[in-house]
Amino acid sequence: MGKGTRNVKTMYSVSALARTFALGALLTLGLPAQAQTDPLPSWNDGAAKTAIVDFVQATTTQGSPKFVPPAERIATFDQDGTLWVEHPMYTQVMYVLERVPALVKAKPELAKVAPFSTVLEVLKGDRAAIAKLTEKDLLELVAATSTGMSVETFQSEAKKWLAEAKDPRWKKPYTELTYLPMQEVLKYLRANGYKTYIVTGGGQDFVRVYSEATYGIPPEQVVGSAGGTKYGYGKDGKPFLTKEPKLLLNDNNAGKPEGIHLMIGRRPVAAFGNSTGDRQMLEYTKAGDGARLSMLVLHDDAKREYAYGPAQGLPATKVGTFTQALYDDAKKKGWTVISMRNDWKKIFAFEQ
Amino acid sequence: MGKGTRNVKTMYSVSALARTFALGALLTLGLPAQAQTDPLPSWNDGAAKTAIVDFVQATTTQGSPKFVPPAERIATFDQDGTLWVEHPMYTQVMYVLERVPALVKAKPELAKVAPFSTVLEVLKGDRAAIAKLTEKDLLELVAATSTGMSVETFQSEAKKWLAEAKDPRWKKPYTELTYLPMQEVLKYLRANGYKTYIVTGGGQDFVRVYSEATYGIPPEQVVGSAGGTKYGYGKDGKPFLTKEPKLLLNDNNAGKPEGIHLMIGRRPVAAFGNSTGDRQMLEYTKAGDGARLSMLVLHDDAKREYAYGPAQGLPATKVGTFTQALYDDAKKKGWTVISMRNDWKKIFAFEQ
Repeated sequence: MGKGTRNVKTMYSVSALARTFALGALLTLGLPAQAQTDPLPSWNDGAAKTAIVDFVQATTTQGSPKFVPPAERIATFDQDGTLWVEHPMYTQVMYVLERVPALVKAKPELAKVAPFSTVLEVLKGDRAAIAKLTEKDLLELVAATSTGMSVETFQSEAKKWLAEAKDPRWKKPYTELTYLPMQEVLKYLRANGYKTYIVTGGGQDFVRVYSEATYGIPPEQVVGSAGGTKYGYGKDGKPFLTKEPKLLLNDNNAGKPEGIHLMIGRRPVAAFGNSTGDRQMLEYTKAGDGARLSMLVLHDDAKREYAYGPAQGLPATKVGTFTQALYDDAKKKGWTVISMRNDWKKIFAFEQ
Repeated sequence: MGKGTRNVKTMYSVSALARTFALGALLTLGLPAQAQTDPLPSWNDGAAKTAIVDFVQATTTQGSPKFVPPAERIATFDQDGTLWVEHPMYTQVMYVLERVPALVKAKPELAKVAPFSTVLEVLKGDRAAIAKLTEKDLLELVAATSTGMSVETFQSEAKKWLAEAKDPRWKKPYTELTYLPMQEVLKYLRANGYKTYIVTGGGQDFVRVYSEATYGIPPEQVVGSAGGTKYGYGKDGKPFLTKEPKLLLNDNNAGKPEGIHLMIGRRPVAAFGNSTGDRQMLEYTKAGDGARLSMLVLHDDAKREYAYGPAQGLPATKVGTFTQALYDDAKKKGWTVISMRNDWKKIFAFEQ
């Protein structure tokens, strides 16, 4: 967390206090329930900001025809490209690649075998070699680096890496590359009784390592691609779970609403995404009865972040696929597109 | 919910209010955090009640060496036989059996085919025929009655049945056959910042239909045996999920800690069970660092409820297997056994 993010936290503690009083007791005394400060200070005025504020007010105002009971206030957020930077490569892929040298040290015979040999080239500086890795290769690398160990060992290795690794462009820990405007949305929704969930195509166990510190989202509110575990006993007789190379949930595309049903059991009222992998989640959310908010983050700010996707003539990339069809879907189905360039005053907390 | 349960609710609203003030703001003013009333009035004084109260005080008192941060306060409860009656047959099995006549009406050829024909015998009054049903038969019956429909259709059918069905002994809705002392434990833990989860071998989708109204546990805090769903579109173009006859999680035995990792991602601090299917959950919970509470409900009250299990010379039954080995495990591993006969002043809210 950067210094700026801490400032945001301080700012919000006032409204959190106001909320505690409001929900707990003072509402019954008729005192005002909401702080009067702007809940989304990093957003420019415009259709996107208005859509969020109007939605929250409509769904949380007693007597509103669109009122949503607190228990049903579920909001789901894709992570990569929606809550934090996904370029030039997903953070978890960087983790997996950077685990390979330790793996090769333990099993030197892997150094000459693809895809491990390809990864070693990438890490030596041949960034372009990353394009050689297929999805099958990535699954093999995930299995080799992130399974066959206890869940606690995985957690402590991932935690250690996250504390040290830096994004190549900003030279900052990945966990500081979250979007300040989206952090504000998370806090604004929570301050209004929403339970916020991450619903990511990334690995559930990986994201759970930092979700609480980074987003204020506890592990149990992270839904992601998940492998199986196996219960067993250590030499000391103590039971533990071993991560297995068996995919239980591929939390992408149709897997997102399916994963939401499995892990949450309710249709979300609000959903946020940025790529074709989020299409079904946005569609499923918006198709529910009553007030619904589906939003799509468009990466159109080449200067402050990145610009990609064929919509609006931006170049296509390997990650965060934002197709013209997705853009058309947004228009047709009433999802609100968030332009990073136009809607966000500030992208990162560390910006001056 | 019976009348008595509502009384308990009223009683607890006082401590809930106290808690809101305490956690939200008044703690900082140094006012007392806890209401002084007995949080477990349906419990007799004894080792079990003491174990619960001591555990809660040790884990929630600031400065206690066993203090557990609020975010880590996870408590898991088996359902059948731990939170409500499981005899003479699990409620969900009764649901599945009682769906069969409608199924046979739609497909008359099933009337002469096992296991459907066996179920028709049972429903005609031949209760003993239930013993003919194997586990494979039950899975076939679940698939036939509870899949191939939208999740919403399943929910509304199960809800309708639960509103009408009655337990054969007490002639009351199944949802009134919850154990009042365990309802008190759920509320006591929640009033002290614990998140309470059901972790059941029963169907996750089935239990989620009534968990909130019956136990105050929202659907997203129910972990159970779960089938897959498939995302698709209706004739109106609207997306929906269809329940599939594919088992994703068998939430029994080792499946309980595995399911807990998948759905919660943290090791529980407290766990409650009553049968061999809960052994690994109790063991996994107790093996964690710091303060841990594992408790086992012993059905030893033939008069007020049922007595079963070979421990203490009780007869074995098909459901809720409580073996001598489980009883020995409890002693060896420091789980506390709850005697329904001795520890519970009242079993049901509707008792006079």
